[in-house]
Amino acid sequence: MDKKSIEESISALDMLDCQGMFLKDFLLTWDFSDDQIQAVFQVAEVFRKMRLANLSAKVFESGLAISLFRDNSTRTRFSFASACNMLGLELQDLDEGKSQIAHGETVRETANMISFMAEVIGIRDDMYIGKGNTYMRQVAEAVQAGYDAGILEQRPTLVNLQCDIDHPTQSMADAMHLIKYFGAKEKLEGKKIAMSWAYSPSYGKPLSVPQGIIGLMTRFGMDVVLAHPEGYELMPEVEEIALKNAHTAGGSFSKTHSMEEAFEGADIVYPKSWAPFEAMEKRTELYGRGDIEGIKALEKELLAQNAEFKNWECNEQLMQKTNGGDALYMHCLPADISGVSCNRGEVSAQVFERYRDLLYKQAGYKPYIIAAMIFLARFSNPGRKLTELAEAGKKRVH
Amino acid sequence: MDKKSIEESISALDMLDCQGMFLKDFLLTWDFSDDQIQAVFQVAEVFRKMRLANLSAKVFESGLAISLFRDNSTRTRFSFASACNMLGLELQDLDEGKSQIAHGETVRETANMISFMAEVIGIRDDMYIGKGNTYMRQVAEAVQAGYDAGILEQRPTLVNLQCDIDHPTQSMADAMHLIKYFGAKEKLEGKKIAMSWAYSPSYGKPLSVPQGIIGLMTRFGMDVVLAHPEGYELMPEVEEIALKNAHTAGGSFSKTHSMEEAFEGADIVYPKSWAPFEAMEKRTELYGRGDIEGIKALEKELLAQNAEFKNWECNEQLMQKTNGGDALYMHCLPADISGVSCNRGEVSAQVFERYRDLLYKQAGYKPYIIAAMIFLARFSNPGRKLTELAEAGKKRVH
Amino acid sequence: MDKKSIEESISALDMLDCQGMFLKDFLLTWDFSDDQIQAVFQVAEVFRKMRLANLSAKVFESGLAISLFRDNSTRTRFSFASACNMLGLELQDLDEGKSQIAHGETVRETANMISFMAEVIGIRDDMYIGKGNTYMRQVAEAVQAGYDAGILEQRPTLVNLQCDIDHPTQSMADAMHLIKYFGAKEKLEGKKIAMSWAYSPSYGKPLSVPQGIIGLMTRFGMDVVLAHPEGYELMPEVEEIALKNAHTAGGSFSKTHSMEEAFEGADIVYPKSWAPFEAMEKRTELYGRGDIEGIKALEKELLAQNAEFKNWECNEQLMQKTNGGDALYMHCLPADISGVSCNRGEVSAQVFERYRDLLYKQAGYKPYIIAAMIFLARFSNPGRKLTELAEAGKKRVH
Repeated sequence: MDKKSIEESISALDMLDCQGMFLKDFLLTWDFSDDQIQAVFQVAEVFRKMRLANLSAKVFESGLAISLFRDNSTRTRFSFASACNMLGLELQDLDEGKSQIAHGETVRETANMISFMAEVIGIRDDMYIGKGNTYMRQVAEAVQAGYDAGILEQRPTLVNLQCDIDHPTQSMADAMHLIKYFGAKEKLEGKKIAMSWAYSPSYGKPLSVPQGIIGLMTRFGMDVVLAHPEGYELMPEVEEIALKNAHTAGGSFSKTHSMEEAFEGADIVYPKSWAPFEAMEKRTELYGRGDIEGIKALEKELLAQNAEFKNWECNEQLMQKTNGGDALYMHCLPADISGVSCNRGEVSAQVFERYRDLLYKQAGYKPYIIAAMIFLARFSNPGRKLTELAEAGKKRVH
Repeated sequence: MDKKSIEESISALDMLDCQGMFLKDFLLTWDFSDDQIQAVFQVAEVFRKMRLANLSAKVFESGLAISLFRDNSTRTRFSFASACNMLGLELQDLDEGKSQIAHGETVRETANMISFMAEVIGIRDDMYIGKGNTYMRQVAEAVQAGYDAGILEQRPTLVNLQCDIDHPTQSMADAMHLIKYFGAKEKLEGKKIAMSWAYSPSYGKPLSVPQGIIGLMTRFGMDVVLAHPEGYELMPEVEEIALKNAHTAGGSFSKTHSMEEAFEGADIVYPKSWAPFEAMEKRTELYGRGDIEGIKALEKELLAQNAEFKNWECNEQLMQKTNGGDALYMHCLPADISGVSCNRGEVSAQVFERYRDLLYKQAGYKPYIIAAMIFLARFSNPGRKLTELAEAGKKRVH
Repeated sequence: MDKKSIEESISALDMLDCQGMFLKDFLLTWDFSDDQIQAVFQVAEVFRKMRLANLSAKVFESGLAISLFRDNSTRTRFSFASACNMLGLELQDLDEGKSQIAHGETVRETANMISFMAEVIGIRDDMYIGKGNTYMRQVAEAVQAGYDAGILEQRPTLVNLQCDIDHPTQSMADAMHLIKYFGAKEKLEGKKIAMSWAYSPSYGKPLSVPQGIIGLMTRFGMDVVLAHPEGYELMPEVEEIALKNAHTAGGSFSKTHSMEEAFEGADIVYPKSWAPFEAMEKRTELYGRGDIEGIKALEKELLAQNAEFKNWECNEQLMQKTNGGDALYMHCLPADISGVSCNRGEVSAQVFERYRDLLYKQAGYKPYIIAAMIFLARFSNPGRKLTELAEAGKKRVH
């Protein structure tokens, strides 16, 4: 990876208007302009090239990155850790079980108490509809108020590591994967991507991945098809955003209740299970009431409902219907693989195996995407800062 | 924050005799001379100014900081993490559940095993009267013996992150808050501070905060009034220290069984719940015997006892009795706020809300105080080292 | 510690052929040549001298070290943390409970997902015979495949932090302790070391320590005697390695069912409890079948079997039989100390107490050994890199 290639990527960044990203939380991709979204890809690419050239990207001599995971995570946890480490921030996990939150702390209080020397706060809160993103905005308001009141000496930036609405670090890494796979962002225009529901023997999976995908991929002039059985609707407001995006970008956004139809001629397929929006709303309400019996009954109902759609499996037969029979298969991982992690799942072992390396590469962009999100929020002139880093030429491994 | 201001703070430090702090554990504030206490404030202030001036305070290229929390913590945990990170130490938490301590390790053994490359060990052990501070001293003796025997190549410094007797990082941060709020340490002379018990629907809260407050604030020439219902006595030996301090410093230390009387004309109020010392001694003994029924009976008894004093709530009516009706309200957080975190608690929502920003600022001094405690124990000539750091001028954020 | 002493140690390293260590996982000591084993001691010694001379050994500006502990650990956990920190890597623990492994991830997937920016992966997996080392090799294959496929930009190195077969960071630290204690590796020739089973009131302790000891100590021309009651056999393949090693190195490897015989004239004794190999195989199988009743029955049986050998205790009477009555007593810690951590255990309190400092020193070499293992796997020309570090002269503590 030579110096010139890095300089070119920085020059491309300098063409973009990304002023508004400074100090702005990254909560939903649709909060950002096309230039700003492009800036994330561009900075991520510079960081990738710098790493390949063994150049240090440590812009912080000290400082904390706080993570708060309210749901399990491997990829995102380690991606966030990698991104922060690359920039020079030390990760501290807020384990709510070990903190005093149970002992009467409010969101506002906790947010300030963990932020005295924090540059970034990453949060995963994806379990309950209407809760996760709301919580993140409460934290954002709290640290903003803390900063305005002179309590915090810096205003930490929030990065959404998956909420009930969007999963921006996932969808952005997915998009970067598409850009690298097809060669350029422009190559995505006119491509057909099928974001399809798929069967899983579990229930209650978040809607944030399919929502993130239709909310982002509609911006690149693609034909985005959303497929799911009746009853597995996404949040209407996100579908509206997808429609609006498609209109602006010159692609399309359509829906179908047939996986086959969605796969027909598709260049990219993204088959993944999720829970029905309305059921998730009901579940959130039941949890709120502490209605354990109601939750159990709902689980049973949902699993029975799922089981009606066991044929929604991404297998070779379906893949044959895609463009040239070799659409790019995507998944956020871990996937429910038929005969491997479950009897019958989202994808056949054969299809999964064929795309395994590409799936892992897809995941591999996430650390760079997260680092880019943090970087753009912390430096008002990102192009100049990257140039300084590249010119300083400090080695990552001595 | 200009260079001159930093230099002035360092010069003030150079006037103080803080030689004895080198390699000395920070366990109780009354283990330290007035100059040494002042040195902590002074170094904390230099670090704060350096951070505001974007100067790196990283004095360690590598090295570990070990934390051991035997009770929940948010503020102190993140403050310790922030302080260590600012100095260049990586935090490693000794989670006793994941270690082999249950499998036969002695305190002496564990202390040495975690310390091979440790510069500092921070411990919270505040649950049992007669235990926490004793444990810290055992750890201190163990690492001292390890160092003397050539097992440890450096003698890690202990920092008390709250024990059964004192909570020095809290009381010192509280004092720094007072110094900043009133403008100078000298301005504290003659001020009246009411350290008062307050009602809480929980029981068994440590005594270390009120003890830390009366043990420290009596050193600044203040009129320190301790108020609590009968039966909520503190440890007699700490009260003696408070008396002695007040005598030396020219202030006063008095006690009352009336919250109103304590608040009368007070410049500062610190209403906070704690458990009665004798009950805590009994509880420690019951735990030692594994007497579960006895513990349950004691809990019930304590909660009933607490409930007799529900009127010990810091509310606007009481605040009206303070000097000018606007005494500074303090709390170590989290507070039991009436109508917010409980039906009836230590403080009314109205009072808490009015002082919220100041309470958060109060907490914000803790990272600097901890960093200063570590720094003074690790560098024999702190003034020169700070001057070197300031003159090196390395940026914290590039 | 002067510069010349460091240079001498580096020169000694340069005499050794350790080319093959670059990018090679450290799983079993017998995977490495004598020169390579010696190189680990040599690098560990350079790091120790550099630390004593306050020189930074930070060769990584950024990068992650991943730890995965499937069993409790204090020493190894903190040694690994210390080693990684010294080299500039930030430790991230893969807590399987918090990850999505339960949710369908394969070993191959997890291994890649945590490795995007990882330089080293340390694993402890010692509970089940036939499982731990196998798991490590699966992880190694997975990251190799990921690297070959261009998924990983670097191939992280694995370090075995204890498996079912070997405990190389322990045995190598133990050997370094012997070298330092007796003055030189050459001084070990002809020394008699008794690796003896000892009674413990617990069961199911791993075989990896005795196996690691006989597999390594037989390389130094020592007379290695393995002693245990009938029924406490080690894995036959490791005994074969010990025999072969002894033959090559010019020492001996013998077995006895008498602790007294083993101690007779010994220069070093290492009395430690372990479970019988066959019982461990049976246990692994029972766990595999989820046969809880069978496991309980086996536990009972094993404890009863152990209890027949309560006289296998290292006490002063036995120590009198050793060479001059003052053989070096070793243990990997924590030890079951009679009258301290249990009624009757592996060692009497008197013997343990007499050797306590030496035991702690023994443990103190582990951070350096681990750092050396990582370093030799990450740098193709370790001697030159160490020279650069020493000449750069960057201070660890400023």
